[in-house]
Amino acid sequence: MRAVDIIARKRDGEELSAEEIDFFVQGLVSGAIPDYQVAAWAMAVLWRGMTAAETAALTMAMVRSGEVMDLARLGPVVVDKHSTGGVGDKTTLVVAPLVSAAGLPVAKMSGRGLGFSGGTLDKLEAIPGFNVSLSTGAFLAIAREVGVVVAGQTGDLVPADGKLYALRDVTATVPSLPLIASSIMSKKIAGGADAIVLDVKVGKGAFMRTLDEARALAKAMIAIGQQVGRRVTAVLSDMNQPLGQAVGNGLEVAEAIAALRGEGPEDLIAHCLTVAAEMLVLGERADDAATARRQLEALVADGRALERFRRWVQAQGGDPRVAEDVGLLPAAPVVRAVEAPRSGYIAEIDAEEVGLASVMLGAGRERKGEPIDPSVGVVLGPKVGQRVQAGDHLFTVHARSDREASEAAKRLLVAYTWSEEPVAAPPLVYDIIRGE
Amino acid sequence: MRAVDIIARKRDGEELSAEEIDFFVQGLVSGAIPDYQVAAWAMAVLWRGMTAAETAALTMAMVRSGEVMDLARLGPVVVDKHSTGGVGDKTTLVVAPLVSAAGLPVAKMSGRGLGFSGGTLDKLEAIPGFNVSLSTGAFLAIAREVGVVVAGQTGDLVPADGKLYALRDVTATVPSLPLIASSIMSKKIAGGADAIVLDVKVGKGAFMRTLDEARALAKAMIAIGQQVGRRVTAVLSDMNQPLGQAVGNGLEVAEAIAALRGEGPEDLIAHCLTVAAEMLVLGERADDAATARRQLEALVADGRALERFRRWVQAQGGDPRVAEDVGLLPAAPVVRAVEAPRSGYIAEIDAEEVGLASVMLGAGRERKGEPIDPSVGVVLGPKVGQRVQAGDHLFTVHARSDREASEAAKRLLVAYTWSEEPVAAPPLVYDIIRGE
Repeated sequence: MRAVDIIARKRDGEELSAEEIDFFVQGLVSGAIPDYQVAAWAMAVLWRGMTAAETAALTMAMVRSGEVMDLARLGPVVVDKHSTGGVGDKTTLVVAPLVSAAGLPVAKMSGRGLGFSGGTLDKLEAIPGFNVSLSTGAFLAIAREVGVVVAGQTGDLVPADGKLYALRDVTATVPSLPLIASSIMSKKIAGGADAIVLDVKVGKGAFMRTLDEARALAKAMIAIGQQVGRRVTAVLSDMNQPLGQAVGNGLEVAEAIAALRGEGPEDLIAHCLTVAAEMLVLGERADDAATARRQLEALVADGRALERFRRWVQAQGGDPRVAEDVGLLPAAPVVRAVEAPRSGYIAEIDAEEVGLASVMLGAGRERKGEPIDPSVGVVLGPKVGQRVQAGDHLFTVHARSDREASEAAKRLLVAYTWSEEPVAAPPLVYDIIRGE
Repeated sequence: MRAVDIIARKRDGEELSAEEIDFFVQGLVSGAIPDYQVAAWAMAVLWRGMTAAETAALTMAMVRSGEVMDLARLGPVVVDKHSTGGVGDKTTLVVAPLVSAAGLPVAKMSGRGLGFSGGTLDKLEAIPGFNVSLSTGAFLAIAREVGVVVAGQTGDLVPADGKLYALRDVTATVPSLPLIASSIMSKKIAGGADAIVLDVKVGKGAFMRTLDEARALAKAMIAIGQQVGRRVTAVLSDMNQPLGQAVGNGLEVAEAIAALRGEGPEDLIAHCLTVAAEMLVLGERADDAATARRQLEALVADGRALERFRRWVQAQGGDPRVAEDVGLLPAAPVVRAVEAPRSGYIAEIDAEEVGLASVMLGAGRERKGEPIDPSVGVVLGPKVGQRVQAGDHLFTVHARSDREASEAAKRLLVAYTWSEEPVAAPPLVYDIIRGE
């Protein structure tokens, strides 16, 4: 087998065999296939696409490129969730303890934020003492003992993905559906998942800008699941405005805690219940989503969800008292409330702009490895569809300085679009697609 | 400017500016743009194509990447020719002295054979003493004093092309029309040509298999010429069977000498007169092709064409007596005449198969740098359209051993397709396309 022949076949729109894809992924990891051949191949894949069989073969070849977590001791069906990323997306902080309290263990690897999009690890680290760098042994022990653990990658999972992504990033080959789908699915499968709920974000603050794109990605991942024996459910959810009110790491932790008490923003609670219910169904803890939802609502109402959160935080070295007192989270020196400059209905709050404003404040990073400030961010007031009077409270900026607060407020005001006429709030969930 | 943005624009089907293309070519040569980005870009170009303006910009950026020959002292219009390569294509050996004898100097850089396709330098080296490795000074001196010189590349012409081609070869990005066209045109322009006759070969023994492909390549090169002020004429000529009778380096020299005497195979003479006449028209030595052709026929008839050949060979260190005595060329130890195995009309002589048989005999090479044997090859008898009786002479193999002669004969017999019904000989020239 020669790499150049495999590139030529993909270039000509032919279907690659599992053996050819395996040869390519192995060569990529070992260095036997040089970067320039991988780059040409990636562009040919972006051009020609991949069949479901090819995408599944690529996924499993990437899984085999490194270690695979064995989570079989956690239960008969290990369920993971994955969000394609957005602004104000603190879903994991709510869903992980909630699902765990319902009897379905969660042992999840997560990532950091980049650009306008936040990351779960950064959010968790806003809790004083919280440790996201666990050994595989510690990760598994907490999963077994507490039923919930969320950490950075442990072990050498899917090295092919890291290498391929780095190359795609500099060769304009990131936006390829089969490459995106196999990247996500390979990491989830190597992480030990038997079943996966995908939270595919759609809109201005997401990587998928249109419902069609999001649906295509969801279907590609469900198809991979079907080929490799993993049940996949995709929730297509809105990211045209931020999820909930808070954007910024410590502020989002506080909001997640409120949600676990049943006090949080309605949209956040509703979204978390949707995702968590689908996880319970896949994990065979409920017959259908409606039953699961009632179970979950009870766990919020009687405090067991928050109690699971507290035990989780403690197990990972964090201060469990934050569950009762969010004043223990880092606080920004400048907190400025900003008023609505005009009256009208809020027609849009551009999620990407809100995300970029929070990066400006120090809540996010433009390049990998940059430090972030857990105390800063924005808390939105009224959201899309609500009627506001000039002078009403519109949002609150949490900043390191007056100057940064002013700059962020200016940028945030531009993120709002106003209407004289009533505007319908966007749906939270566009569709739920369940694999076989 | 960032390479990744240029790749993304080409990926999305946008037109690159001359500045972007220049930035890319400069980065390719300096190493500032790594191979993996060039490879992804090349695949995107293969996918999306290039406009005439982009292809011209790429051509001139490649020309500027190295030295440019100054041939202005040779005359007001310096005309070059280029063949896309074929089997038995000894056209340059006939046309260069013929055109020179008509008053149009020829100072031409040529290449070596690879795979089934032969190369002019290998053919010239079959002449005892002939030196194709000239300094730029010697090259120019012979061009001025004798009016004809053919050598390997002198100076550092178009380094971008060498680097890009090496990368295309291993990334399955060779068959891109704008990349092929700009590669050829940049080398001709850097070689000092004001006008170019392109001999685009079409058929089984050529890189362009169909007339449509050949016409598209011809038009792309003519379009480059129009953009950069070089007149280009393309002759689309047949390569479904070898040109002339001889395939093999010394054998082809002998056949070229015969053609210069007016004794050579009719198809070769006719083809050479077509190409040479177009060169004279572009070089403003004749008003039209018909007038040019009469001039050229006279130069063959009165011996001035052969005399120019003799002076040329002498100037480059070769033994000029070969012009009278082809017995001075290297001779193979085994010469075997092979008879027709059946009666019928010859419907096809697969030029690629004949080329590969001659490589087997040692007349060509599979990899760059391999030595070749100037004495071996094949001389065909009757060609497509002719009626043959079983037992008639079909071809003659010139080999280093009986075993090699037998193996080549076997392979050559398979190259023939027979018909009971009369078959028309293929046209020599399909079309002549003249640029503005």
